[in-house]
Formats: sequence, C-alpha cells, structure tokens
Amino acid sequence: MKPLIGIIMGSDSDLPVMQEAAKLLEEFQIDFEISIVSAHRTPDFMYQYAQESEGRGLKVIIAGAGGAAHLPGMTASLTNLPVIGVPVITKTLQGLDSLFSIVQMPPGIPVATVAINNAKNAALLAVKILAISDQTIRQKLSDYQKNLNQSVRDKNNQLQKIGYQQYINDLIPKN
Amino acid sequence: MKPLIGIIMGSDSDLPVMQEAAKLLEEFQIDFEISIVSAHRTPDFMYQYAQESEGRGLKVIIAGAGGAAHLPGMTASLTNLPVIGVPVITKTLQGLDSLFSIVQMPPGIPVATVAINNAKNAALLAVKILAISDQTIRQKLSDYQKNLNQSVRDKNNQLQKIGYQQYINDLIPKN
Amino acid sequence: MKPLIGIIMGSDSDLPVMQEAAKLLEEFQIDFEISIVSAHRTPDFMYQYAQESEGRGLKVIIAGAGGAAHLPGMTASLTNLPVIGVPVITKTLQGLDSLFSIVQMPPGIPVATVAINNAKNAALLAVKILAISDQTIRQKLSDYQKNLNQSVRDKNNQLQKIGYQQYINDLIPKN
Amino acid sequence: MKPLIGIIMGSDSDLPVMQEAAKLLEEFQIDFEISIVSAHRTPDFMYQYAQESEGRGLKVIIAGAGGAAHLPGMTASLTNLPVIGVPVITKTLQGLDSLFSIVQMPPGIPVATVAINNAKNAALLAVKILAISDQTIRQKLSDYQKNLNQSVRDKNNQLQKIGYQQYINDLIPKN
Amino acid sequence: MKPLIGIIMGSDSDLPVMQEAAKLLEEFQIDFEISIVSAHRTPDFMYQYAQESEGRGLKVIIAGAGGAAHLPGMTASLTNLPVIGVPVITKTLQGLDSLFSIVQMPPGIPVATVAINNAKNAALLAVKILAISDQTIRQKLSDYQKNLNQSVRDKNNQLQKIGYQQYINDLIPKN
Amino acid sequence: MKPLIGIIMGSDSDLPVMQEAAKLLEEFQIDFEISIVSAHRTPDFMYQYAQESEGRGLKVIIAGAGGAAHLPGMTASLTNLPVIGVPVITKTLQGLDSLFSIVQMPPGIPVATVAINNAKNAALLAVKILAISDQTIRQKLSDYQKNLNQSVRDKNNQLQKIGYQQYINDLIPKN
Amino acid sequence: MKPLIGIIMGSDSDLPVMQEAAKLLEEFQIDFEISIVSAHRTPDFMYQYAQESEGRGLKVIIAGAGGAAHLPGMTASLTNLPVIGVPVITKTLQGLDSLFSIVQMPPGIPVATVAINNAKNAALLAVKILAISDQTIRQKLSDYQKNLNQSVRDKNNQLQKIGYQQYINDLIPKN
Amino acid sequence: MKPLIGIIMGSDSDLPVMQEAAKLLEEFQIDFEISIVSAHRTPDFMYQYAQESEGRGLKVIIAGAGGAAHLPGMTASLTNLPVIGVPVITKTLQGLDSLFSIVQMPPGIPVATVAINNAKNAALLAVKILAISDQTIRQKLSDYQKNLNQSVRDKNNQLQKIGYQQYINDLIPKN
Repeated sequence: MKPLIGIIMGSDSDLPVMQEAAKLLEEFQIDFEISIVSAHRTPDFMYQYAQESEGRGLKVIIAGAGGAAHLPGMTASLTNLPVIGVPVITKTLQGLDSLFSIVQMPPGIPVATVAINNAKNAALLAVKILAISDQTIRQKLSDYQKNLNQSVRDKNNQLQKIGYQQYINDLIPKN
Repeated sequence: MKPLIGIIMGSDSDLPVMQEAAKLLEEFQIDFEISIVSAHRTPDFMYQYAQESEGRGLKVIIAGAGGAAHLPGMTASLTNLPVIGVPVITKTLQGLDSLFSIVQMPPGIPVATVAINNAKNAALLAVKILAISDQTIRQKLSDYQKNLNQSVRDKNNQLQKIGYQQYINDLIPKN
Repeated sequence: MKPLIGIIMGSDSDLPVMQEAAKLLEEFQIDFEISIVSAHRTPDFMYQYAQESEGRGLKVIIAGAGGAAHLPGMTASLTNLPVIGVPVITKTLQGLDSLFSIVQMPPGIPVATVAINNAKNAALLAVKILAISDQTIRQKLSDYQKNLNQSVRDKNNQLQKIGYQQYINDLIPKN
Repeated sequence: MKPLIGIIMGSDSDLPVMQEAAKLLEEFQIDFEISIVSAHRTPDFMYQYAQESEGRGLKVIIAGAGGAAHLPGMTASLTNLPVIGVPVITKTLQGLDSLFSIVQMPPGIPVATVAINNAKNAALLAVKILAISDQTIRQKLSDYQKNLNQSVRDKNNQLQKIGYQQYINDLIPKN
Repeated sequence: MKPLIGIIMGSDSDLPVMQEAAKLLEEFQIDFEISIVSAHRTPDFMYQYAQESEGRGLKVIIAGAGGAAHLPGMTASLTNLPVIGVPVITKTLQGLDSLFSIVQMPPGIPVATVAINNAKNAALLAVKILAISDQTIRQKLSDYQKNLNQSVRDKNNQLQKIGYQQYINDLIPKN
Repeated sequence: MKPLIGIIMGSDSDLPVMQEAAKLLEEFQIDFEISIVSAHRTPDFMYQYAQESEGRGLKVIIAGAGGAAHLPGMTASLTNLPVIGVPVITKTLQGLDSLFSIVQMPPGIPVATVAINNAKNAALLAVKILAISDQTIRQKLSDYQKNLNQSVRDKNNQLQKIGYQQYINDLIPKN
Repeated sequence: MKPLIGIIMGSDSDLPVMQEAAKLLEEFQIDFEISIVSAHRTPDFMYQYAQESEGRGLKVIIAGAGGAAHLPGMTASLTNLPVIGVPVITKTLQGLDSLFSIVQMPPGIPVATVAINNAKNAALLAVKILAISDQTIRQKLSDYQKNLNQSVRDKNNQLQKIGYQQYINDLIPKN
Repeated sequence: MKPLIGIIMGSDSDLPVMQEAAKLLEEFQIDFEISIVSAHRTPDFMYQYAQESEGRGLKVIIAGAGGAAHLPGMTASLTNLPVIGVPVITKTLQGLDSLFSIVQMPPGIPVATVAINNAKNAALLAVKILAISDQTIRQKLSDYQKNLNQSVRDKNNQLQKIGYQQYINDLIPKN
C-alpha cells in the first residue's frame, strides 16, 4: 500500500534513533517509508522529497536530525503536510543544539517537536493525527494507552509483591 | 458550529500570548473555543476537559503554559487527541523551563511542541493537521504560504527600491 | 504499621535512584510505602493515589521523575500533604529538564525540590518534617547529623595520619 | 505569640521578593518572624540564628538568597528544622546561579527548594508542613486550594462570557 | 559595479542588526547588495539566490537570521561561496538558539559564524577574505586595524589625563 | 606614590563596571592606576603593559572584559603577577560568555575570577592579597568586614523595629 | 611548496581533533603547515607566528583551542589574514566554554567559528575561501559537494533496498 | 615548617581532583597542609578552621567543593586571608553548579575562582600571591613559566620533525 507516513533523517547515523518511529508504526500497522535525506548534503533531494510528498499520498512527515538540524524546518517550509521533528542527541551539546534548531521556528512555519531522541513519540503523534479521521486507528490508540496504563500497574503490583530490593535485583539482568 | 480546536492555557496571564492562536484560526475561519484550565489549580477541571474533548468533537488541543508547564503533557495523557504545546516565556528562565517541561515528554505520551511564545505556529500546526482530510483548508493553507512568500518578496522589492537606510527609517514609525 | 511516607516514581527505571530514599527511611525506622505511579501513563492512578493519600494516613509524599517530570507537581496539586520532588537524571539534558519541570511550580502549588538524583535528601527532608512533632525522630536526626560530622572528622584524621597520596591509593580499591 | 516560622534573607534587597512569604503567612494567621541574616557578611549571626531556632520554638525556616546563595544550605547544616530555600533572581544569570547554589545540596543536608523568586510557595510549603499536625491549618489549606480552583474557574467563566478580545482589553488596565 | 558581497537576512526585522555589515562595507568602498531572503517563507527564492550567487560574481555571502536560523546553513549547502553567518538575538533565548542553529553545522557544509548580532564583524571577515587577493583592500584593512588600535590608545590617554570619574561623566552624555 | 594595583579593561564601555574597583581601593587608600588596554585592538600595548607591570612595581592586576574576554588570561600569560579577572556582563549572553572565557583557563595560567560585574570584589581580593604582608591593610580589612557585619545587623534591627511593610516603603525612595 | 594554510592548536591534546583539517586539505592537495602554538604558554611564539604569517605566504589560519580558548581570537588580532576558529570539546563544559570564547569576539576582530570539534569544516571553509580566486580548487570543491550528495543518495538507495532493520545490523560492525 | 597554604575540600571524593594542588606546591617546595572540612556536615569545624587559619600562619586557603559548593565562600566570610575556590565537577550538571556556587559571591566577600577541576591552577595562583613578597618563589615561578613555554616548543618541534600522523600514533600509547 501507499505509505501514509514518511520518516526521513539527515544521516544514516540517525537511524538507530529513528528506527523507533518505524517500529511503532509497524506495531500500529500503518504504512510508512523511511529515507535518508540530508538538508545540507542533498538539498535538491530534500526539495524534491518535500514537494512531492503530498502528491504521493503522505499525510505526515517525521524528520530527525542533529546539531544545526535544518531538515525538519526546511521540509516544513516546502510542504503543507504537518512535519514532526525529532532532535537527535549530539556528542557535544547533548542535543540542545538540535532541539533549539528544530523547535524555535519563526511564525508561519511550525514544526511539531518532540523530546530529544524520542522518535517513538514522533510516530505516536503521527498516529494521533491519523486517528482524527480514522476510527480503526483511534481504537488501536485507545488500546495502546490502556496497555501502557496496565503495564505500569503491573510493574507496581510486582513491586508491591516482591519489595523494592528484589525488584532492583531483577532489573539488573534485564540490562 | 461545534469547535474543532480547543485552545487552553494555565492562567489568564498567558492570554496575550495565546490570543495569536485564536486570531490565526479566525483568519482560517476554523471554529475553536478558548478556555483557562490550570493543571495545578484546577486539576479536576483539566481532567474533565481533556476526557470530554474527543466526545465533544474537538480534533486538536492547543495548550499553553509557563514555568513547570504541566498542562500540555497532562492533557495529552488524558485524551487520544493530538496536543500541541506552547511554552510561554517566563521572567526568570525566559521560557527555557517551559520548553523543557513541555517537550521532554516520556515515550508513550507525545506533545507537539512549538517555539517559545509562538502560539500562532501552534494554530498553524493545527490547521495543517485538519488540512490532511479537508480540501478547503488545504487550499487556504496553500494560499497562506503563498502570501507569506509574496510578503517577503514584496519587502525585498521595497528594500531594493529605496535602499536599506530609507527602509530602516521607514521601519521605525511602524514600531 | 500504617506508612507515614509515600515514595512514588514515574517509572521503574527511577527505582535505582529512588531506593536511596527507602534505605534512609529504614535507617530511621520510619514506615513508608513505595510505588510506581506514572503521571502520564496512569493519570487515573495518580489522581487516586494523591487524593487518598491524606486519608490513608500518609504525612509526606516523595515523588521522583525525569524529563518532563510532572508527577511531583501534579501530586502536589491533588493533596494538601507536602510533596518533595526528586529530579531524576536524564541521558540527554542530564536532569536539567527534570529540575526545571519540578522546581518551577507556579504560585499556589509548591513542590519541595531537592538536588538532581538526591533521593536520600528527599527522605531526610521528610524526616525533618516528621521530627517537628516527634521527639524520637528528632533525637535520631541529631544523632544522624553528629554521625555525619564525626565521619568527616574521622576521614580528615585518617588523611592527616597517612597523607594524601596514601589516602588516594586507599580510595581506589573502594570503587 | 511565639513565631512558628522564621523568614530570613541575605540582604534587604531580597525583601521585595521575600515579603510574599510574610503576606501568605498573615493570610493563614500563622505567627512568623522576618530577619536579615547574611551568610557571608554576618556568619556569626547566621550561626546563632540557626542554632537557636529550634529552642526558640520555630518549626520551619524559610531562607531566601541570590547569586552564590549559601544562606539556605548553611542554615540547614546548623539546625534540625526543615529549611525551605527561595532562589532570588539575579541581574546577571537570572537566578540560575541562585537555584543551583540552593538546590544542589550534598547528601545529608537537604534544602526544600521552591521556584526562583517564589517566596509565596515557600510559605505555602511551610503551611503544608504545619498542617500535618494541625487540623485548623489543614482546613484553611483546603479552603485556600478551593479558592484557587474557584478563582481559575471564575476567570474562565468570564472569558467564556466576554470573549478573549474583551478579556485582554480588561487585563491591560489591571497592570 | 557588480557587487562582491551579498548580504541576506531572513526578515526585515533583522535589518537594524544587519545594516552594520552594509556600513562597514561602505567604509571599505566594497560593492555589495542587501536582500531579504527567507529560508522558511521563500525557500524557492533562497535556492535561486544561492545557486545564482557565484555566477553573478558574488565572492562571499553574509547571512543573518534568528531563532531556528536556517538561512546561513541552507545557503552554504547550495553554493561553493564561503557563507558567513550572523546569529541575530532573540527575545526568548537571547540568540543562543540562533547561534547553535548556525554554528553547529555537520561535516561537509561549514558556515563561518561570528558573534551574536555582530554583523560588523561578518563584514570585516568578508573584507579579510577579499584582501587575500586584493592589495588595495589589504592596505585599507591595515589602516583600519591601526585606527582601532589608535582609538583605544586615545581613549586611554584621555582617561589618564582626566581621571576615571570625569571620564565616566563624559561617557554619559554620549549615550 | 607608585601604584600597587593596575586596573585594566578592554573598552571604555567597561568603565562604569570597573570604577567600583577604583572606588574600593580609594576607600582603602591603596595606590592604583586605571587604564584601557584592549587584548584584541591593542595587543601590542597589552604585551607591553603586562610585561612591564612587575618592573613598574605593580603587585596585582585587575582585568575586566566582556564577551570573548581574553584580556585577563592573556595578561596572566605575560606576567608573574596574580591577575584577577572581572567578567563584564554582555547584552546577548548576560556575561556567561565572559565568565567562561575568563575562568576556564588551562593548567599553568590561572586567572582569579570573581562574579560577573563584581569589580568591587576584585579590588577586595587584591586588598586581601596585599594584606598578607601588610599589617596596616590587614587592620583596615578587619574593620571593613566588621562594618559589613554591623551594617547588616543595623538593617535587621531597623526591620525588627519598623516591620517589613514599612521597611519596603522606605526602600523604594532609595532607588 | 609554500603552505597556504596554517593549522595551529593550543596543545598537542587538540591534535586528534585538528588532524581532520589536515586530512581534508591533503584530500584537496592544498599545502598546509600544522603547529602547536599556545596563546597562554607561548604568547611570544603566538605573536611571532601570527605576525609573520602573512609575510610567509599563508592565506588563511585555522586555530583550534579548548576551554578559555584565546588562540583564535588573539591570532586574529595580530594578522590581517582570516582566522577560522575550531572550539575543541572540554570534559567539563563540553566545549560550550570553547565556543563562547571563540565566537563572541568584539567588533573589529572577527573569528570565523565552526562547530565544536569540527576541524574538517574549518578546512573546508579555508578551501572555499581559496576557491574564490582559484578555478582548480573551485572545481574540486564542486566535485566534493557532488560526492557528498551522491554518498547520501547511495546510502538511501541501500536503505530502500535492504530495509532499515538490515541496514542497522550492517551499521553495527562498522563501529 | 609551618604551612603557608591550607588546602581544604568538602569531601574525600574531591581528593583526586585536589591532589593536583598539593603536587604543584611540592614542586615549588612550599609548605602546605591538606584537610577535609565540610561546610555542610562539619560547619563547626569549618568555622574553627577558617577563624584560626590566619593565626596559625596560613597565607592563602585553597578550597575545593562540588554541587552547592559553599565551602570556599563560607571560608572567605570567616577569614581575612585570600581564598581560592576550585569548582569540582559533578555527575549531573558537570560542575556548572559548583562554578556558579563559588564564583557568584556578593559584594564584600570575594572568592578567587579557577576553572572547574583545575586545582593545579589554584595552587599556581597561591604561588603567584606568595611570590609578590618572596624573591625565591618569584624566581621559581619564572622558571616554571619558561619550562611551560619550552615544553610547548619542544612538542611543536617534535611535531614538525615527525609529522602529525606519527605524532598522533605516539600520543596513543601515552594514554
């Protein structure tokens, strides 16, 4: 099927972070595509990608980038689709540069920014947007939130049952 | 008509910032409501507002708050609707506290964060979301972007015509 | 016995930090409970927990959370009990986001914030609060402070005795 | 009557900020004293103040200071009473220095830190602490929270009634 | 004559800052052009400007922008000319967002960044670049530096002559 | 008499800040000189000043500068005299840039850094250094500290006498 | 041949970062020299180096330094050549101190600052500067940009071909 | 002999950082003492230490501390001796909290602050202070600076001789 969500990133080094968006969309069985599109090294490709995105049937674009992260904002300036930005952590300024470069857009060109490195939330936001006009996705979203809720309650029940010391002991092997 | 967008804010002191969202939606002739809902002082009202929002026909919530800004994130945790967060500037930390409190949400509960004080962009993001499934809004959005583009070009033409010194002189009376 | 202190945290990943609060309370033989309560994933459980806390006999709540850390502030808005907030360190912004989200509460809803990751101090603060009306705890607190004092003096005496180079050599095996 | 709360500050230039604590306590009819005690310029007075505080019947100390703000932490190291710290804004670093100097206390010596300049919340926190063992204060606290809640709801009702544009017009004369 | 330096900025609100670049180039009698080119509102115009710049005879581009400042970096990705970036101060984050968005470019696409708001230095840097292959400009640059040096020495001589108190008195009317 | 302390600054715009150092030294009747010496615009003069300073009888150099503040560090690298650095506030980064540029010196070349804009403390530090080997200055320093102490106590006594509300009223006319 | 570019750094510990500049220049077959010149430990050598640089035929200086990084700015104050500054990362403040010390230069003495640790971009900027008056270098630069562009497209093609999960698996062995 | 320099620190965990001060003083053959004195856990000991320091013949105090680092400032408020502060790095805020807590002292009580973790520079600053009135130390200081200078020149000569690639290879085994 034609993808509804386009996931793009400035470099393949962002892929370990951005794959979480892909996994979440697979979990929701929403068609997506995932591409490497650099604002700085392939500005022509970025233009083409952004300007063709709506015509190709994409509904939302998720764009991840680090440092002077221009990909989300420039993509947003080239399409009417909502663009969700994922600030990718950097070695030097820990993603604060990425965050500022993505979130501080001027009036007229918004980017929907999520937490540093939180590509999963970018995908969930895209799901929430699609859910507005899609009852099936809306139902899945409700289930997802219920599962999140239950999962915390299960953990708490386990904590009450075995005590915090044992719980921490059990945590360690998981890492 | 039933509002499609709910604009909420933690305090009436946020209203001068948040009114820009209202004005933009009026410009796009999209029905909205605007309310004061404090996460900290009226948690019961916030719960009610968030949980009834989808049933009342809202499609997107825009939430502005400053400081330890919990309204956008808590609202997002109580509804399946996409929530757009506007970090409102603070006297002490200039809105950096608001930004961190809104954007750094944990996996599972995204908030679509825009620039500090940029309520207009929150509204534009909501418009972009509605435009996915509404051809009329999509057309208005295209026109809006074209006008933005033309307005910059007009300013540049004026700058070329009168020179930068005269242009700056003309700027001052506008302020 | 009925617990006097409730320790809550947003995720079980906060438990390695928050266990220090539990250990300190055990050292003071003060009854406590420890639970996982997520503001974002279990807002209903948080409401219930906070609103029942006073009735269940709790005197102080210690709440730890990281990132857009809303648990301490939201809990504080739902109970008259004093709430102590522990900003948990984050990978990206090192807990500065947690600190701002917890400490920068608006007028009307205070959270007693301690240092990033310093759950032990949160527990000590709770002990100091209980000590106001409990002579036994007050005495234990005095002893605790005297022991802290003596422990520094002992270390200094050891340093004077063996010299700084030997002292550093002795430090290393401890790590 | 003997004061229950001691409000101290490092300089009389902090008084315009710290008076909010005094006003809140007056509103709750809780006896307090208010003093200028500088950690750096009157270390002897600070020692005396802190060490005599418990014996004089104080239950909680509220300490405000700016810059390298040592008064809250040093006071906390000299008494078993809970100490609430108010970081006062500074011209150069906007109170970030004050916040770090007050909140980042080492294990063993907690300071209950509130938001920058938020002396009112420091007082409210003291009230919450006293309320643990005082039914009258607890009742007043409940009323206070209800009033806060109602006040937000009243503002929202007014907003719904007159619309946001008129509400903003009405806001301006208030400033 | 054909301009050697192109000064561009994202908005006419940047002109009061960027005019200092123009004035410096006039002082050096170097031909320049000055234009408003928004990366976000006129991405097509930016592409055209950047890609035609070398062919039109420009040697250096000076680009000023604020917030999520993408103009310098995107221009640099679209031309082989050296691009000098001027981070323009912002109301919220004081230009730290502009600085990070301009200076933290990824490997392959450098932007020569100067101090926040320091458009004069951007122009001087352009002059230094032109001076490499232009003996006349090099001579003017030497004279400029000598004048700077002499101007400081003159001020110091005046200070020695009249004393610091009188000097400060004389400073005030200048403002 | 020959000056013992040399006060230097990078620009005459630093003089309103740096004059506080001069006033404090006058209060202690310690001979000083005050000069404008720019690291960047008069590097030759800075070299000469620093290298001749010890021979001319100076004992301590106080250097104030803002932004990329190189004057204190470069002076320290050119003389064996202790150099005290005063980070001068900047419009854009509020002196954080000045502070980092002055305090973060590499091993081998220390600069004794004081608080942003706190030239008075730079002078007091110089006085403390001279006092090590000068009994008269040591005595004056003791008196100075006693006056500071007494001044705080006087203010506190006044506060106790007239109450905080009256005290604040009395504060306002002073501004 | 006589070197056109001088690469200098404050310490040999900066060499692992600064070697990237050397490698890039080798790739472009541009003659360079590389030296250790400390502003603080060898101010005399720095003066000599900077003042002789133009006479020796250098066209551009690349200067890397960390912490209170004075080398780029001081070199810029001693020569008419354009100076490119590379802020080297620091253990404590992650290079934010280096960045501020290099980029925040006062009017009159610009330093062309690149991203923290990004010595490769400093060299590319130098290449862009030389390319202004050298057709051969300009052609190489065009080829370099084309290769960058193609390399991103190749990676994207590979991603499309093998899918993101396989691509990530293939990434890991590379590290 | 009686020590001239007192090195103190808030915790034995600071000793690995503070030992560099001791080593530098040994290199200069200046008598010192080194002690653990906690402002928060042993305020009585700190008072005693600071107030007896001058009488015991100390000339300078070097105080290192991390987090809410009150030891340098409180010591400075209790003695007329110059106090040099060493901000010790912290896990959470990387020493920025320590730096602000030490350097931002109010008028009247200066602390001579050096770079984060740079205890060696604190000792060198103490040496520079003693050198003012001690010809022998002054000579050693001159020699030390010459050695620093020569050491950089030697490294540069080696770099010129073997080339940067070989130099980096030689660097690695040293680590």
